[in-house]
Amino acid sequence: MARLVQKFGGTSVADIDRIKAVAARVAGSVTAGNEVAVVVSAMAGVTNQLVGYVSAISPLHDAREYDVVVASGEQVTAGLLALALQELGVAARSWLGWQLPLSTDNAHGRARIQGVETDEIVRRMARGEVAVLAGFQGITADGRITTLGRGGSDTSAVALAAALAADRCDIYTDVDGVYTSDPRIAARARKLERITYEEMLEMASLGAKVLQTRAVELAMNCGVRLQVLSSFADLPGTLVVGEDEIVEQELVSGIAYSRDEAKITLLRVADRPGIAASIFGPLADASINVDMIVQNVSPSGETTDLTFTVGKADLERAVSVISGCRDNIGYADLRSDANVVKVSVIGVGMRSHAGIAQRMFRTLAEKGINIQVISTSEIKVSVLIDEVYTELAVRALHAAYGLDA
Amino acid sequence: MARLVQKFGGTSVADIDRIKAVAARVAGSVTAGNEVAVVVSAMAGVTNQLVGYVSAISPLHDAREYDVVVASGEQVTAGLLALALQELGVAARSWLGWQLPLSTDNAHGRARIQGVETDEIVRRMARGEVAVLAGFQGITADGRITTLGRGGSDTSAVALAAALAADRCDIYTDVDGVYTSDPRIAARARKLERITYEEMLEMASLGAKVLQTRAVELAMNCGVRLQVLSSFADLPGTLVVGEDEIVEQELVSGIAYSRDEAKITLLRVADRPGIAASIFGPLADASINVDMIVQNVSPSGETTDLTFTVGKADLERAVSVISGCRDNIGYADLRSDANVVKVSVIGVGMRSHAGIAQRMFRTLAEKGINIQVISTSEIKVSVLIDEVYTELAVRALHAAYGLDA
Repeated sequence: MARLVQKFGGTSVADIDRIKAVAARVAGSVTAGNEVAVVVSAMAGVTNQLVGYVSAISPLHDAREYDVVVASGEQVTAGLLALALQELGVAARSWLGWQLPLSTDNAHGRARIQGVETDEIVRRMARGEVAVLAGFQGITADGRITTLGRGGSDTSAVALAAALAADRCDIYTDVDGVYTSDPRIAARARKLERITYEEMLEMASLGAKVLQTRAVELAMNCGVRLQVLSSFADLPGTLVVGEDEIVEQELVSGIAYSRDEAKITLLRVADRPGIAASIFGPLADASINVDMIVQNVSPSGETTDLTFTVGKADLERAVSVISGCRDNIGYADLRSDANVVKVSVIGVGMRSHAGIAQRMFRTLAEKGINIQVISTSEIKVSVLIDEVYTELAVRALHAAYGLDA
Repeated sequence: MARLVQKFGGTSVADIDRIKAVAARVAGSVTAGNEVAVVVSAMAGVTNQLVGYVSAISPLHDAREYDVVVASGEQVTAGLLALALQELGVAARSWLGWQLPLSTDNAHGRARIQGVETDEIVRRMARGEVAVLAGFQGITADGRITTLGRGGSDTSAVALAAALAADRCDIYTDVDGVYTSDPRIAARARKLERITYEEMLEMASLGAKVLQTRAVELAMNCGVRLQVLSSFADLPGTLVVGEDEIVEQELVSGIAYSRDEAKITLLRVADRPGIAASIFGPLADASINVDMIVQNVSPSGETTDLTFTVGKADLERAVSVISGCRDNIGYADLRSDANVVKVSVIGVGMRSHAGIAQRMFRTLAEKGINIQVISTSEIKVSVLIDEVYTELAVRALHAAYGLDA
């Protein structure tokens, strides 16, 4: 017997038949003797439709009213799943964010969870009742509905699991786990049995869309054991856990890539103190995130070339911000390039093993792929390369680190 | 300057353009110096879709979860209308049933309103802010969402108007007022400028679908002045008010008809005390409403023929209930007929004027229409006739009482 939180995404509750299938799965867990709380997303497509309504009325909308509108999708699926469970003879009731309550701050549209009240549902779970929580939504101290940002239902599920001290938080989705790389590119990618929070975080922030970064962070901070698995198959998924739970750590656990980057190079920037602040200050003021940064040593010692990356969607705005500060910064030319991809090698094992980065550079060199920018963290090496080499690079690295199935 | 409640039905908020049009109309009322609270229905079709989801999952559903699901439709339109108002520069915020709160009993799916808290919105209306209330929904004492039954948004609006002591409650719909009869049948029907609550109640219960019976009852009991008008035209509608506000009362204000009736006749029922209870008791137990009842005097004095009407949708069930009690009741034969229509002449003026019923019977006789059952109330005479005569009867009566335009 365990206490479980099970979260079902939009494709898992996309229509009535799938909601019934989810109910059958939850009922199975209850019958097996577990205490179960469920978190649901809106039916696939519904949130987009609601966001579309809001945009059509008011492009610069009041985020409080946006939240009222878009939170309705999860309300529907929570009620429907409770009904489907009852239909199977399983006691169940729906809980909306304001009913539990799941308290958040006032940052409408991207609110952060401040607390989850679980006394009542713990009592009911002990009697065999399933709590079906509408994901993605909460309530402020002054009684207004909030939403947690896209994909926020994952975060709802992890927060609930933490508050319930659940044995596991199962994230049911349309893929059956976390892979060593994107199987659409690396045909020999294989499903990982286990992965650490840290690796999952890097994977998520690098474009593996299986889990929301915030949900993984919260799970890591609260020690919630996560499992990513398919709601359409009866297979174990991938466990996301602390390093101590991983017996035999591989050096590298995955190869990720992100096409969301764009590169900006400033040529012959004056090499003086404060120059970085004069560039990145205005970008930060414009809420543009800068990811990789590299500054070349200048031969003359008077000017330098500076390259950095921003999100592709921010490229135009970033160029305009920098151009606007040209006199203040002082550079000879600005070049931008959106045809780049960031490829990353991820693994907690690299902390204790030298040569991981070296193998990456050598592998890419052997394929004739030029590295434009490099950045590293404790458990990751990322390189920026020409986008046309994406598949070639991912496959070559996947093989080079012994990840091929 | 007045304090107004404006209610917009599903067709008035059916899409984004219509919601914008509603916002423009509300903004006009605010600009004219009025304090305005708005009540909205769900977008046309949405409630049916949500009810369909519930039925598909669970025919005998938990009404508490049904309410969670179907209340979401009004949540969406309340948020969207608040946004559309803000877009026009009008301060506005949405209020859900549980936020106001609008308190109800526990009769989920058809809850009755127990109170409406308005202190906060009164403060905000005084500052020019429009309160946009999600109609149709409330909250129980233990914090669960309720709905008020189909068309419940009218009732929400009237209850809010009563609590606010509003000068008027305007019900915007897809017709432009209350007519002397159904214009699709009586081409010369004309829009009434004013009608009494009592007449409107009879009209509503007799099939004129302009206003919910409960909303009219509540308006009458609380003295809320109602106006029924079109959201697609800029014309005054029909005022529903107390008799004291009607200066020159016409004898008859309208001719209504209902095709929803079916007739059951029991032949040669034993004419003994308690016989009516033995028939209508079982029907009441089966929640079948009986409308008109007529018992013929039996020539022999030992048996009698008894005729009554039930809703067409209940006919089959009613026949089965009665047949099941045949031994206890004791009748020779049961005949049922669904091809009947109830035609009614309505007017508070008939209280003080004799001859209204007589004119009805004579008019129908002149057209060769046989009257099967008669029932009367203080302000109404209804007859059951063969359905094929519906149009003929309505038109003839409309002319006979001088209602033709």
